[in-house]
Amino acid sequence: MHVLRVNVREQQAQREPVPVSWQHLGGRGLIARVLVDEVPGECHPLGPRNKLIFAPGLLVGHRLSSCDRISIGGKSPLTGGVKESNAGGRTGYHLASLGIKALILEDRPTQEGWWVLHVGPDGVRFDPGDDLAGLGVYAVAPALLERYGDQVAIALIGPGGEMGLASAGIQNIDKDRTPSRISARGGLGAVMGSKGIKAIVIEEGQQPPIARPEAWKAARKAYHRSLLAHPQTKIYADFGTAAMTNMCNSFGGLPTRNFSRGQFEQAERISGEAMRELILARDGEGETTHACMAGCSIRCSNVFPDATGKAVVSPVEYETIGLMGSNLEIDSLDTIARMNWEVNDLGLDTIEVGAALGVAAEAGVMAFGDGERALDLLREIREGTPLGRVLGQGAAVTGRVLGVERVPAVKGQAISAYDPRAIKGTGVTYATSPQGADHTAGLTIRAPIDHLDPAGQVEVSRKAQISMAGYDTLGACIFAGFGFAAAPETIRDLLNARYGWEVGPDILAQLGRETLRLEREFNRRAGFTPADDRLPEWMTRTPLPPHDTVFDVSPVEMDHIFDEL
Amino acid sequence: MHVLRVNVREQQAQREPVPVSWQHLGGRGLIARVLVDEVPGECHPLGPRNKLIFAPGLLVGHRLSSCDRISIGGKSPLTGGVKESNAGGRTGYHLASLGIKALILEDRPTQEGWWVLHVGPDGVRFDPGDDLAGLGVYAVAPALLERYGDQVAIALIGPGGEMGLASAGIQNIDKDRTPSRISARGGLGAVMGSKGIKAIVIEEGQQPPIARPEAWKAARKAYHRSLLAHPQTKIYADFGTAAMTNMCNSFGGLPTRNFSRGQFEQAERISGEAMRELILARDGEGETTHACMAGCSIRCSNVFPDATGKAVVSPVEYETIGLMGSNLEIDSLDTIARMNWEVNDLGLDTIEVGAALGVAAEAGVMAFGDGERALDLLREIREGTPLGRVLGQGAAVTGRVLGVERVPAVKGQAISAYDPRAIKGTGVTYATSPQGADHTAGLTIRAPIDHLDPAGQVEVSRKAQISMAGYDTLGACIFAGFGFAAAPETIRDLLNARYGWEVGPDILAQLGRETLRLEREFNRRAGFTPADDRLPEWMTRTPLPPHDTVFDVSPVEMDHIFDEL
Repeated sequence: MHVLRVNVREQQAQREPVPVSWQHLGGRGLIARVLVDEVPGECHPLGPRNKLIFAPGLLVGHRLSSCDRISIGGKSPLTGGVKESNAGGRTGYHLASLGIKALILEDRPTQEGWWVLHVGPDGVRFDPGDDLAGLGVYAVAPALLERYGDQVAIALIGPGGEMGLASAGIQNIDKDRTPSRISARGGLGAVMGSKGIKAIVIEEGQQPPIARPEAWKAARKAYHRSLLAHPQTKIYADFGTAAMTNMCNSFGGLPTRNFSRGQFEQAERISGEAMRELILARDGEGETTHACMAGCSIRCSNVFPDATGKAVVSPVEYETIGLMGSNLEIDSLDTIARMNWEVNDLGLDTIEVGAALGVAAEAGVMAFGDGERALDLLREIREGTPLGRVLGQGAAVTGRVLGVERVPAVKGQAISAYDPRAIKGTGVTYATSPQGADHTAGLTIRAPIDHLDPAGQVEVSRKAQISMAGYDTLGACIFAGFGFAAAPETIRDLLNARYGWEVGPDILAQLGRETLRLEREFNRRAGFTPADDRLPEWMTRTPLPPHDTVFDVSPVEMDHIFDEL
Repeated sequence: MHVLRVNVREQQAQREPVPVSWQHLGGRGLIARVLVDEVPGECHPLGPRNKLIFAPGLLVGHRLSSCDRISIGGKSPLTGGVKESNAGGRTGYHLASLGIKALILEDRPTQEGWWVLHVGPDGVRFDPGDDLAGLGVYAVAPALLERYGDQVAIALIGPGGEMGLASAGIQNIDKDRTPSRISARGGLGAVMGSKGIKAIVIEEGQQPPIARPEAWKAARKAYHRSLLAHPQTKIYADFGTAAMTNMCNSFGGLPTRNFSRGQFEQAERISGEAMRELILARDGEGETTHACMAGCSIRCSNVFPDATGKAVVSPVEYETIGLMGSNLEIDSLDTIARMNWEVNDLGLDTIEVGAALGVAAEAGVMAFGDGERALDLLREIREGTPLGRVLGQGAAVTGRVLGVERVPAVKGQAISAYDPRAIKGTGVTYATSPQGADHTAGLTIRAPIDHLDPAGQVEVSRKAQISMAGYDTLGACIFAGFGFAAAPETIRDLLNARYGWEVGPDILAQLGRETLRLEREFNRRAGFTPADDRLPEWMTRTPLPPHDTVFDVSPVEMDHIFDEL
């Protein structure tokens, strides 16, 4: 494995050996390490001193189920702090297959223009990409596949990233070549745009070597067995993440009408169950279950068809349903799917944009429930109108500009589809994660705890955050956790077999703790303090129906959450 | 003296004795003390936990020349940190004459609606003010003078404050009843708006008692003599602050074309000298010199007339000329005066709005030099269009939304009309002042130092910041400093005579140091760190013509500027 460093100003690349302190890390942990080692905390996120880092997780490259994820990171234009955003698709696998432990884009071009970075076994090439400028990802991906052949991986930005919008992510093509696996959060698409890179095309190499093949086979088998045995695996295959809609609604934590209520009267209409029925009834190109990475046995993705059976978008996820459905009081899966396509094509984060639309609706810019108006507003983003640019900068800027206090955001990043007043442990995660509000940083909804009781939530969140930071360092999907949690020794066994290490059974927590330590150190240098580890003040004051609870976990307790990292 | 506490939710007021640790403070120092004692650092600036504080300085209430200023403060919606913004006019004198050491507005109304707070010798009254909603300050002030008689003082907000814009200030009427003495910076008008108060009307009471009348008379005489003897006093009477235009242009530090150059080819046309000639030539209602407070012997204000001699606006100040003139490449004093009137009427800060327009021009929203387009954009602010609201939120939000890197701001507050790459000591002040970028926090342009040399600037800025924090605590105008600097013992003598104290000759520095300590403590609680004490990164990288210098004062040196407060 090596580090591939690409200077986008000089258009030159360099292969380097992996520094010793980076070798035991991958994915999210490695990104934090690179940021602490190389990026000044105070730098401008879109300036020449920020870096854009692609790091496959430690287990990536072997078609382990749900373990080929790519972590992308840098200093976030949305939060101003550390940012790692991981996704499925091909990118992680292809990079690992070329022996690349980290691809680091550095500096900034001095001239305007767009480039396609081609990464192959023989090195790196900058190909002209001006003809792709302004195009959405659904147009660019096929053009690149035509140009480079359909075996490549592609990571690319849409118009949102080109425009420097802080809600812009980086899309990765999935195993079926659809550019829909987005490293969505925190504005990394804008960082890629600031580097003048429209797309990165990555050839496929060889699977990385296994130090102890027999041990690997055994561990792999044990992990897959454990994963398949988990009851949730079947649920996600049937309903995808949208299974959460009814669950979260029943908990009273489904964001509704810009986070003013926790239950949506029409929740049933936008539930995973309703979506499954609709897909099955419409036949055609729709799929109720679909894998984003080769070898995945969970297959939580789907393909959503229109009334004629033609595919509209893939996948429709719970977070999109929560933020662009109930949060806007839009109760039509067809409308949500059309909005999803638009936002995907722009290369934006549906969570951030959905939350921004909710804030805009509260300001009277659109009526709640008016999907056509919401689609108009998405077109304003594409056109770059002042209002469109405001929305594209995310919920916090939208609230600031439009004078709305009820903004669901922490560290400038929108809260996802679990209202923290109803699921308080996740609220602790939103508040204290170095990433800003992010459910994947440590979701607690499955913890056996009274989610309305403020007591004990800090501990539950702490454990979840450490585990998730560990999984994100492995390159494991959040759902791989079902398998690993039931057979934790397989993590140790897989790592030892893959690398010839002798790590112990607490390696997941070790990696998670180290990652969080590094992330907090970067944020400290970037100017973060405990004052940033807070939910919005209004959530501590305004009760959420139906439980009429506020977020009342003690700030002092939250300040000590990571004392023992 | 007493503290007057007004709860705007319950519409109730309470007189309280002055706490012991507040008694030796006034103005800016007292505001910092109240914030540290009573306002949580993390609170939302427009939420119920923020307070809006009016505190006359320690010397206010006796018509001492240039010493009747009102300090207004709270947590800033623009910077998120401590904010004090002082102004001339009647407000300070009237509050002191009623024995009010601090007027503190607390909480937030639960219902919509606008109120006029009437403060008299017999207490406080909430009068309906809905009929004034949406009106500019030039319409509201006469209406209130009609209603309450023309002997009152008035502090009021314009549409900008009602809209919650972070560039909104609080206008105070001057001795001639014009609402033009604005506590401009940091968005305090939005805080007042969040409290539902359109205007505060203050009756006049009695001059506060003097502990040692003979000593007071002697000290007063010595101070006035020293002030009148200073050569700058005559210059400010002749040219107003606009005298700075040519001076700053000759230093290569006049903001031009959104801070991309330090000299403006047409500077002569918008200079203080040109303005004086124009006013004298046009005759009519124009005045080259004018006092904002009764008893002021500097009279730096002016009244700018149009070609027919009719008054357009009062005053036209250097900062407005720099930010709305050269910074936008607008070379017509008539256009600048019209823009000034619009921004005043909206109740906004000309520095912040001028800087925002400069950023917008860089983004292509207007052409540099196009005054009519700039006036159109000011109308968009009044209409509350999305673009107008963006501009009204200030330069930093404008840059964020429009994707412009060249944003002149520190801690979210726009840099005023001294480019810090040409006047580096003032750059240190911009970077390290707890207030955000603010020339009145410690201007160094008159220091006998090479302004282009990074060495020694931290020390110069430190001294200037301590002095200014002291003057702002006295209620003394920045120009009173000419008199006090030449006869520093008069500060001690005035305070001892006024209050019967026995303070020593270093009282100005003592007050300044205590003020800065308190302000830094509030900012610490609000989440500020050394990472916030920086100029924009591009200013350390992009040279400023004509000297082609960058801002290169050592960040490490700046981090230690207040080690010995």
